[in-house]
Amino acid sequence: MKVLSFVGPSGSGKTSLIERIVPTLTDRGLRILVVKHALSFEIDREGKDSWRIFNAGVDVAIASKDKLAFVSRLGDDLDRICSIFYFYDLVITEGFNGACKDRIVVLRKPDEIERFKCGRVLAVVCDEDVEGFRTFRPDMIGEIAEFILNWFYEE
Amino acid sequence: MKVLSFVGPSGSGKTSLIERIVPTLTDRGLRILVVKHALSFEIDREGKDSWRIFNAGVDVAIASKDKLAFVSRLGDDLDRICSIFYFYDLVITEGFNGACKDRIVVLRKPDEIERFKCGRVLAVVCDEDVEGFRTFRPDMIGEIAEFILNWFYEE
Repeated sequence: MKVLSFVGPSGSGKTSLIERIVPTLTDRGLRILVVKHALSFEIDREGKDSWRIFNAGVDVAIASKDKLAFVSRLGDDLDRICSIFYFYDLVITEGFNGACKDRIVVLRKPDEIERFKCGRVLAVVCDEDVEGFRTFRPDMIGEIAEFILNWFYEE
Repeated sequence: MKVLSFVGPSGSGKTSLIERIVPTLTDRGLRILVVKHALSFEIDREGKDSWRIFNAGVDVAIASKDKLAFVSRLGDDLDRICSIFYFYDLVITEGFNGACKDRIVVLRKPDEIERFKCGRVLAVVCDEDVEGFRTFRPDMIGEIAEFILNWFYEE
């Protein structure tokens, strides 16, 4: 398994970029898990059976023929998450800046790069060139996907 | 890890029973995952980032400091689910009648038992006695929890 982070300021377009890139990666056969970091979130709906069970103090999964969901108190330790979901080829994180994994930094302005230099910056996505880094424009979806595939297979 | 199923007809009160029993079990230190079977479900909300990423064709997890959720295409193979989430002490299933695990059968009427005899019936929960089985009334929450703890530790 390899781990690649998309990091950058809030509102820089990380989700949209991931959403548009992953179809190309799955078409090439990669089994991908995207792990999104959030300050807090509520995925389930109050009153539903799964919500009631979770709020009774236990972790809960819901399974149907073609879907499995899971809501737990496991938290955001990225290495632990990767060890549980070891059967994916590639984990793409949105956020997790502090985990210092190989990363693509998504910026609105070049000078925002400073906060996101922990780990290895493979490339930057920005409307302007960012000195010292391979820079893609946000609409270069095919090129970014190829760049990720090269990184995945060649290193 | 041990696996215990709560099975019975729809509307017999399986969710309520599980919801009321699990606090006693977690108080005794058991790490519990409840796995609920559903014909189909939608846990996430249309338009949310995680929903968008899932609908782009990849599995998705959302992590915060104290919570981890996961929405995937893994499906409902119970043995596989147990192998992924091996770090719980007890998996309680709601449904999964066909998996034939040790079970507590929750019934509205005694003659409904026939469909739920696959696997080992540890006990029945019903307003009337069910011949040939240890029967609890639905409000005997403490007794049912103790019965489960005995099964968990003594076998």
